[in-house]
Amino acid sequence: MQTSPVATTVDPSAGSQGVPDKVEFRNAMARLGAAVNIITTDGPGGRAGFTASAVCSVSDEPPSLLVCLNRSASVYETFKRNGVLCVNVLGAGHQAISSLFGGKTAMDERFASASWSSGPSGSPILQDASVSFDCRLSQITEVGTHDVLICEVISLSTGEQAQSLIYFNRQYHEL
Amino acid sequence: MQTSPVATTVDPSAGSQGVPDKVEFRNAMARLGAAVNIITTDGPGGRAGFTASAVCSVSDEPPSLLVCLNRSASVYETFKRNGVLCVNVLGAGHQAISSLFGGKTAMDERFASASWSSGPSGSPILQDASVSFDCRLSQITEVGTHDVLICEVISLSTGEQAQSLIYFNRQYHEL
Repeated sequence: MQTSPVATTVDPSAGSQGVPDKVEFRNAMARLGAAVNIITTDGPGGRAGFTASAVCSVSDEPPSLLVCLNRSASVYETFKRNGVLCVNVLGAGHQAISSLFGGKTAMDERFASASWSSGPSGSPILQDASVSFDCRLSQITEVGTHDVLICEVISLSTGEQAQSLIYFNRQYHEL
Repeated sequence: MQTSPVATTVDPSAGSQGVPDKVEFRNAMARLGAAVNIITTDGPGGRAGFTASAVCSVSDEPPSLLVCLNRSASVYETFKRNGVLCVNVLGAGHQAISSLFGGKTAMDERFASASWSSGPSGSPILQDASVSFDCRLSQITEVGTHDVLICEVISLSTGEQAQSLIYFNRQYHEL
């Protein structure tokens, strides 16, 4: 699920015997901690970026990871058209940029808030990310409202900072 | 990537301009923190379980998550045959059971180390998990050495403990 961190309370008694409804599912998913990332792209479809925690490693042969993206997201067509993206893993002190890219701020304003370079794919690389994976989109799997974007890593860059920004229980945590 | 946490050092200068090799990719992926989970199944193929951090939420309509599993893993055929699984999200104090299910210990011995119940799918539910998602396998996408198992949640149960066990930088962290 694309994550736009929103501060609400988790009902600890949530649970169900049947198929959970959206609220029950989201409350339960709040208990699955995850790293926060800014996913960027640039190309014929334009430049775009969003905050996501639904990102994980898939295979190291070929080096691949995946990103889940809501097909109704405003950035969806841009990513699909460009066919490339960069996963910028956030670290300590990145709460503000995470919120900015998870909200409704215009793209130019989002990108103006930080320094970027660009990798072989042309996608923006966040200069002080913990690590950035420059990727080409290799496969798409539709699941309900979302697409699972399978991405092959074509280059990576590792930053100076080795801390991690984790989103868990609807709050940021630094590790 | 199925995670069997192994303690090695991360080279902070790792990085590459071309496609990263396995070691570079794994070192970089160590910077992507993730929740630790025990994935279980039971059914005609037998009972099995393994530790995984490559798990993420996909869609809340229908409520779905995904789990990445190496096709060469010893438990692979069991999961595929049963077509059901439970994602047990670990919390504080679960380091030992995480290592047990991430190692080479026999299945009976793994399951003997904790208390379990079972959900509608028949898959084992870890009694003191932070939250457990009982699922049926709805779709499989092959990516390199791994399968991405798309799972529809048929029931969930929320535990008493609301802490999280995160694996980051090849170490456990409690949140």
